[in-house]
Amino acid sequence: MKLVLIRHGESEWNRKNLFTGWTDVDLTDTGRQEAKNAGLLLKQNGYDFDVCYTSCLKRAIHTLNLVLEELDREWLPVIKSWKLNERHYGALQGLNKSDTAKKYGEAQVKLWRRSFDVRPPALGDSDERNPKKSVLYRDVDPSELPSCESLKDTIERVLPYYNEVIRKDIERGRRVLIVAHGNSIRALVKYFESLSAQQISEVNIPTGIPLVYELNSEGLAEKKYYLGDPELIRSKINRVKNQGRAAGTGK
Amino acid sequence: MKLVLIRHGESEWNRKNLFTGWTDVDLTDTGRQEAKNAGLLLKQNGYDFDVCYTSCLKRAIHTLNLVLEELDREWLPVIKSWKLNERHYGALQGLNKSDTAKKYGEAQVKLWRRSFDVRPPALGDSDERNPKKSVLYRDVDPSELPSCESLKDTIERVLPYYNEVIRKDIERGRRVLIVAHGNSIRALVKYFESLSAQQISEVNIPTGIPLVYELNSEGLAEKKYYLGDPELIRSKINRVKNQGRAAGTGK
Repeated sequence: MKLVLIRHGESEWNRKNLFTGWTDVDLTDTGRQEAKNAGLLLKQNGYDFDVCYTSCLKRAIHTLNLVLEELDREWLPVIKSWKLNERHYGALQGLNKSDTAKKYGEAQVKLWRRSFDVRPPALGDSDERNPKKSVLYRDVDPSELPSCESLKDTIERVLPYYNEVIRKDIERGRRVLIVAHGNSIRALVKYFESLSAQQISEVNIPTGIPLVYELNSEGLAEKKYYLGDPELIRSKINRVKNQGRAAGTGK
Repeated sequence: MKLVLIRHGESEWNRKNLFTGWTDVDLTDTGRQEAKNAGLLLKQNGYDFDVCYTSCLKRAIHTLNLVLEELDREWLPVIKSWKLNERHYGALQGLNKSDTAKKYGEAQVKLWRRSFDVRPPALGDSDERNPKKSVLYRDVDPSELPSCESLKDTIERVLPYYNEVIRKDIERGRRVLIVAHGNSIRALVKYFESLSAQQISEVNIPTGIPLVYELNSEGLAEKKYYLGDPELIRSKINRVKNQGRAAGTGK
């Protein structure tokens, strides 16, 4: 059983060094090119799929659309779910590094970014950024919607959806592609590789590089590899790591 | 109960004056612009949707993607079905007007184009253009797939899908958008307006113009109108009509 994960390409707020979370920003031209490259890599390596999953955020949806275009697979079924959204960054969303450090102090910012279960400050119910006020989630029970998330919270949202929905497709022999976000993908990586809270905090997912998991009968990783040029992948992972050091942008 | 239909924008083969049918050609830049305009018209007129349907052909899928982008509704569920494909033009697919007239004679070509139940020549089972050989339909029972269709055949494929699937969504109060093709839309128009075979042959659907139906409790048209500038719509309808006279391209 094989599964392919792709993190969306660079977004407008990645570029501006802002915390993004659930803010629905689009890809940059660089991000669009990363998405096309991901599709090309899958094509060159003979990959095909039966069903695709993505979040309800346009940077992931547009990445998937571009991948499918490269693969000539626009006609594949695509299922969009908010359960695959990025970690919700609460009141940090829209702030840049220096604003955040000024407002809360460097030590606190580091804790929000690197800890497993510490939440960023929550959005108030009347905050325009609160998902309860967004048309995107009008069909979702408001009590299910977060106003901020720790990585642990994100995992507790992503994993049940994976196990109850996506995994069933994989077990039926369907070839699944998931296009999602740094932290929703880390939720899956932690599970597939049985990583500890400490271990997952050190994992960085490069943008626009297909990550392949071969799963055993228990649904855990038997083998894992990225497609593409190892040199490029290393440099992309380092870029994510360094973005993190500079106060964490997309993730 | 309201329903919006959009015919995809200009495709590469529309421009080349070739019979397209199920050939999976992309939009031209003009077609992409038409799609964006359709999205803008819906937005300006305050339209919103709960679910979208389209065919499995990329000229319709890309049109829908562009409409959703303009509406900022990328996250809406999209259901793709070959049942909404264009009429299958059999062995005429890929031929241009003069080839077709040379090969079969003008009178015969007119019959294929304008009659209700005369089929164009069928594709052989070994023909590369036969849907049975296409990866797009690998999950469809081959006995269901046509090798050519009259307009009547297209209607008999589209209508059961509409009644069994799409109509249920409408009756549950969901706001439905369908992005499809000249003839799959004509199948619905014939039904909604209870048109005769003769009457439907005179109906021309302009590309990229939202066509709104308000349906009564029996699911038939109570009111029908296009969105946008009446002058532009008239000129677009005439363009389709004249394309038809020049031996029918997309449809």
